[in-house]
Amino acid sequence: MVIVERLINELSKLPGIGRKSAMRLAFHLLNQSLDDLTDLSKAIIEVPMNIKECDICHNFMDKKDNVCSICSDNKRNKEKVVVISTVQDLMAIEEVGHYRGQYHVLHGLISPLKGIGIDDIRLDSLVERVKGESEIKEIIFALTPNTDGETTSIYLKNSIQKVNNNIKITQIAKGVPIGSEIEYVDKMTLMKAIENRT
Amino acid sequence: MVIVERLINELSKLPGIGRKSAMRLAFHLLNQSLDDLTDLSKAIIEVPMNIKECDICHNFMDKKDNVCSICSDNKRNKEKVVVISTVQDLMAIEEVGHYRGQYHVLHGLISPLKGIGIDDIRLDSLVERVKGESEIKEIIFALTPNTDGETTSIYLKNSIQKVNNNIKITQIAKGVPIGSEIEYVDKMTLMKAIENRT
Repeated sequence: MVIVERLINELSKLPGIGRKSAMRLAFHLLNQSLDDLTDLSKAIIEVPMNIKECDICHNFMDKKDNVCSICSDNKRNKEKVVVISTVQDLMAIEEVGHYRGQYHVLHGLISPLKGIGIDDIRLDSLVERVKGESEIKEIIFALTPNTDGETTSIYLKNSIQKVNNNIKITQIAKGVPIGSEIEYVDKMTLMKAIENRT
Repeated sequence: MVIVERLINELSKLPGIGRKSAMRLAFHLLNQSLDDLTDLSKAIIEVPMNIKECDICHNFMDKKDNVCSICSDNKRNKEKVVVISTVQDLMAIEEVGHYRGQYHVLHGLISPLKGIGIDDIRLDSLVERVKGESEIKEIIFALTPNTDGETTSIYLKNSIQKVNNNIKITQIAKGVPIGSEIEYVDKMTLMKAIENRT
């Protein structure tokens, strides 16, 4: 059994995969073709090793390219930049498929509690990006609505306005999620939703 | 983004891993060291490729060994054989750590509905194993308590008794799981539990 245990142990190191799930995954893999196993195995090693951050927006991109697929897409609107804290957030917005502008990934939020300061995330490069820039008309903050998100928004807003006063700065609406039961919405969200009624 | 998508797509092929979970796993992997990625990647390809069934009990074992770790363990009781349908079931019993006898893995159950016949699973090899055998005193069926499990038990019981009449054949107790609320136990289990009261 030692040999299957090796696979189960490796799989149970993954986040959210307990021992039972790791066993199920391992026995699933035992029944896969060599081709399928190779595809998965290679993706796990090759993808993380072949990724870098885009110099412009800090999205992940293939090491062998010069600019990421979004920044290099000429069909996309260059006037709007959505600021998000992670690449996952970028992907979530992209999956909606509605927004066709640019992005800027901070790779974190300012967090005194977690010891994340101004220089630890990609704040300066956004300020540099908008300095003397005439093409960008609007910066849209889509940051987690908590203290860290607020701190980061305030810092960025001030820094951007210092270098470029022609850019409109907005943030995504806070309110009650579509389809949610009002009675189960937390108090803070409900308060904000009433305050920001349209 | 195409490069991360490759990893997300591979991960979302795994059972029980939806797109959201695959994204979470992928971004977790992006932050792992090359060593950790190599361990996982190699286990995925090497474990399934280096496994075979034990000639005696059909448990999975390392290709380079002759007999599985359970069959070759001289400290284990040779008088009892637990019959299970999958290696997962074997592992579940091993994890309890209480049973110290032998096993026989059928790799399935007779199932006319699923088109699984007598020759598709490891039934004959169990019958062969007990034929003229004096060391084995008891065969314990630990098969899923459903029609397929019952069919398989009946077939095996008859076949074993034809070749060796000295072996005691038992099956694991069916009843109410420990800690379960009686009111939520299904009718069939409750009926069996009352019938088989001790």
